[in-house]
Amino acid sequence: MDIRSYTFNEFVERVRVFHGYAAPGVLVGGFMVDLAYKHLPEEGLFDVLCETPKCLPDAVQLLTPCTMGNGWLTILNTGRYALVIYDKSTGEGVRISMDAAKLDAWPEIKGWFLKLIPKPDQDEERLREEIEAAGSSIFSIRRVRIADCIFRKKRRGAIVICTRCSEAYPVDDGIVCLHCQGEGLYAESD
Amino acid sequence: MDIRSYTFNEFVERVRVFHGYAAPGVLVGGFMVDLAYKHLPEEGLFDVLCETPKCLPDAVQLLTPCTMGNGWLTILNTGRYALVIYDKSTGEGVRISMDAAKLDAWPEIKGWFLKLIPKPDQDEERLREEIEAAGSSIFSIRRVRIADCIFRKKRRGAIVICTRCSEAYPVDDGIVCLHCQGEGLYAESD
Repeated sequence: MDIRSYTFNEFVERVRVFHGYAAPGVLVGGFMVDLAYKHLPEEGLFDVLCETPKCLPDAVQLLTPCTMGNGWLTILNTGRYALVIYDKSTGEGVRISMDAAKLDAWPEIKGWFLKLIPKPDQDEERLREEIEAAGSSIFSIRRVRIADCIFRKKRRGAIVICTRCSEAYPVDDGIVCLHCQGEGLYAESD
Repeated sequence: MDIRSYTFNEFVERVRVFHGYAAPGVLVGGFMVDLAYKHLPEEGLFDVLCETPKCLPDAVQLLTPCTMGNGWLTILNTGRYALVIYDKSTGEGVRISMDAAKLDAWPEIKGWFLKLIPKPDQDEERLREEIEAAGSSIFSIRRVRIADCIFRKKRRGAIVICTRCSEAYPVDDGIVCLHCQGEGLYAESD
């Protein structure tokens, strides 16, 4: 079963190179992205909302023009394995989610996804075969409209120098930068 | 001037493919990652903390094994153009930041970075030439140790089904999933 312009095995190889290993979450994510595009208009500019930071963002970054750094991929962690691909001018799109109720036919996927099988006991090869065979049959899909506060991007204001740390930061963040407003993230080592 | 194993022009091309265009922030970020590695031991497993979601995460994802989806790249937005690459077992590492005080010799970089030149008036070619010529001379570097609460990863607990939305979520998030605890991110379209 193909994933966008890749065969399944080509996609496995791309995941290995980018993500470091062929994680089941990214492979499943590939089919989620693929299914979303099949339900979107051919024309249009689309952004992605990813509901988990685990694995799924890498499927998005490998298969769409949306990356973390270019701002077209947003992660809002709801803890659910789901993504929304939506028209960036209207917020209209489709949400694809893992559907636990559809996993009974796929014991390895179910065992991995619901953490019923401890990692050392998972059969990696069988899990990959099930993911390929299941394809998009284990997802739910629905049409949604993203909340305005998420998809309407704010224009950012001026850049100024923080009087405390002397680094540049967006003035909209406050009278000193966010780092100097909060707890330190790190200590000096020497 | 090279960026890791790439010539500058090779890196520009990789950025264009992954990020969608050769954004100055990703090009500058390439030199930041390159400088960090020059001050880290050759052996070791390193994670990355990125202090902005803008552009810089893509330089990290192109030049290190760390991606958003594999969990080795963390974004903590302080609004500052800086990153820390640190040993994942000790938290010890180096922080590289843009140093606004070093930009006087580079008017295009200064105009872009501090938003002194409106985007339509920026000279894209000259900006790229300045970024290549400046290399890592526009950064500050210091040794830091990442706060334990950031670099010590928590083990996640069991996965359960949310009684409200019927989707799987980590039980540690609460008695219903984070989505059902908060405001909806989207409305149903049909």
